[in-house]
Amino acid sequence: MLIIFTVQHYDASVSLQELSMVTVADQEEERRSSHLIYKMEVVSLPAVSRVAICGGTHGNEMTGVFLVKELQKRKRKEEGAEAPDILPVISNPRAVQRCQRYIETDLNRCFTTATLSVPVSDGTPYEIQRAQELNVFLGPKGSVKSVDLVCDLHNTTANMGLCLISYSECDWISLHICRHLQKEMPSVPVRYIHYDVPLSEAYSLESVGKHGFAMEVGPQPHGVVRADVWGTMTEGVRLVLDWIKRFNSGVQFDDKVMEIYTLVKTIDYPRDPETQMITATIHPQLQDHDFCLLHQGDPLFLTFSGNTEYYRGEEPLYPFFVNESAYYEKGIAFLLARKKKVNIPSVRVMTRESV
Amino acid sequence: MLIIFTVQHYDASVSLQELSMVTVADQEEERRSSHLIYKMEVVSLPAVSRVAICGGTHGNEMTGVFLVKELQKRKRKEEGAEAPDILPVISNPRAVQRCQRYIETDLNRCFTTATLSVPVSDGTPYEIQRAQELNVFLGPKGSVKSVDLVCDLHNTTANMGLCLISYSECDWISLHICRHLQKEMPSVPVRYIHYDVPLSEAYSLESVGKHGFAMEVGPQPHGVVRADVWGTMTEGVRLVLDWIKRFNSGVQFDDKVMEIYTLVKTIDYPRDPETQMITATIHPQLQDHDFCLLHQGDPLFLTFSGNTEYYRGEEPLYPFFVNESAYYEKGIAFLLARKKKVNIPSVRVMTRESV
Repeated sequence: MLIIFTVQHYDASVSLQELSMVTVADQEEERRSSHLIYKMEVVSLPAVSRVAICGGTHGNEMTGVFLVKELQKRKRKEEGAEAPDILPVISNPRAVQRCQRYIETDLNRCFTTATLSVPVSDGTPYEIQRAQELNVFLGPKGSVKSVDLVCDLHNTTANMGLCLISYSECDWISLHICRHLQKEMPSVPVRYIHYDVPLSEAYSLESVGKHGFAMEVGPQPHGVVRADVWGTMTEGVRLVLDWIKRFNSGVQFDDKVMEIYTLVKTIDYPRDPETQMITATIHPQLQDHDFCLLHQGDPLFLTFSGNTEYYRGEEPLYPFFVNESAYYEKGIAFLLARKKKVNIPSVRVMTRESV
Repeated sequence: MLIIFTVQHYDASVSLQELSMVTVADQEEERRSSHLIYKMEVVSLPAVSRVAICGGTHGNEMTGVFLVKELQKRKRKEEGAEAPDILPVISNPRAVQRCQRYIETDLNRCFTTATLSVPVSDGTPYEIQRAQELNVFLGPKGSVKSVDLVCDLHNTTANMGLCLISYSECDWISLHICRHLQKEMPSVPVRYIHYDVPLSEAYSLESVGKHGFAMEVGPQPHGVVRADVWGTMTEGVRLVLDWIKRFNSGVQFDDKVMEIYTLVKTIDYPRDPETQMITATIHPQLQDHDFCLLHQGDPLFLTFSGNTEYYRGEEPLYPFFVNESAYYEKGIAFLLARKKKVNIPSVRVMTRESV
């Protein structure tokens, strides 16, 4: 199985999804293919010149709010031609003001093509209006005018370390950035999560950029800044910009096999069928154990009356966003992902010679 | 130094604050007095017949909300004449519905005599109206009609274990209950905190009962139920009711020297003098270290620009409510307490013979 990446020229009309990619789905296949030679040619991609660093998309996720406000005090561009232009954005200023997730509706569900096209009237929820404003400022989504990369900063009450969440499993820029963080932050678990949703239905802010991801750091209660989470997120953002600077300056980043997590489904709390009130907590053996493989028969919930409910799925899967406070209202106790390996090609910045 | 408690008959007109009590303020005094004989007579107190268990005084502190809803499903009185009548109360149902701390103003600051007497009009904040309703139902505060004990269930994002917070350092019922929890829950740090405020200015719900305390359990993000915190609070409430049942049935609880924490002052975050925005997080060495003695020169804050700010107080004090999310808006990064020892007398229920 000889895999050759033939994409040497970046064509904005070609979706990243269409670029060749090979995933090795399970260990069996990995074993079978381990003797094969992978040969990947270098993918040339345009410089990442404009980067939006967004915080307060959820107004009570404090690390991003304070980090963006710190960035706003600095100059937008560091020294050197290779440094990107940085746009620090407080996404939902009204929700930040009140230290609430949102005012009328969750802003980070408003970036589908449909919602971005809704005609605005006086009765339109604030967040839909704000999403359309942000789409004008940072997008329009899917167009050549959109910013090169959106890094949207989030916190979670779940024990997730640092995750980059993206709608693409073949956005080489985001994947190489993730690899850079994994290498440079050995004390923090850094993971890449893929939500397999087409761009038009991608509902969150990072989908407005040409490349983009949510940077999710936890555990941290909403409405709080913890020094450890502050340290992780500031270092994460520094390394994102560091990678971009190096990429823009011509450094080649080598190919690599990476593990990523793809969302499979969500699991709700047990609920009273009449009142819809939850009747259980996350089981102590699952609480704080995000990304620890769940097997059939493992405990999921401890009911308020003291009974344990177990995982009945046949396929072992990885739980994440375990006991995220904002997801109670969405009917989500945790999400389940499948882990797989992705071959990412070497990348370098497109130069006049390579065009 | 012979200390004799002469109060053998309970007189509702005598404030608990006026009962004799001796505190040993520091180790030096403790050493000096250690050879002395304490002789305390038994204090007889009326049975604890009506107990309010309140949750959702802050609508996003979930353990109490679910615990009270579970209690509401059960019968109000267990078997046996000595079991108290239990009143499970959702204090702020509108805030619980929205999973917010409050709707218009913090309900748990509305129970001063002044606020409970404010004339109500259409423009009166919901929580002031609700406080007055609760005062009719559970009080009136300071009257013989008030419930015998209010146990108001709270959660905190701070690493406080289980604390009983009370306005009295000589409420023998609350102190003996605390001692019972300390003895029966050896794996959980159980502490007693005293806010030294006169009853008329006591602003929180527990001040409506003849006896009362807030039961504060953390750390837990608001809007979340964790199994460990659920276990601690349900066991705490079970033991409160267990102690009351045993007390009502005639068991004598012996005298004891107890350590309590008295609030001294609050400390705010460093802030930008112009914008009033906070400019630092709690220092990693203080975060999660509630009740670890702070000495002059110990680190308090880590500024967003990376500098450390230190404790300058001459008196070593105990920090608590460190990084409680709800206190950002109140200008409180943490509170400081002085630890002292209190001699609590033996108590038993008042019988016809003892009157």
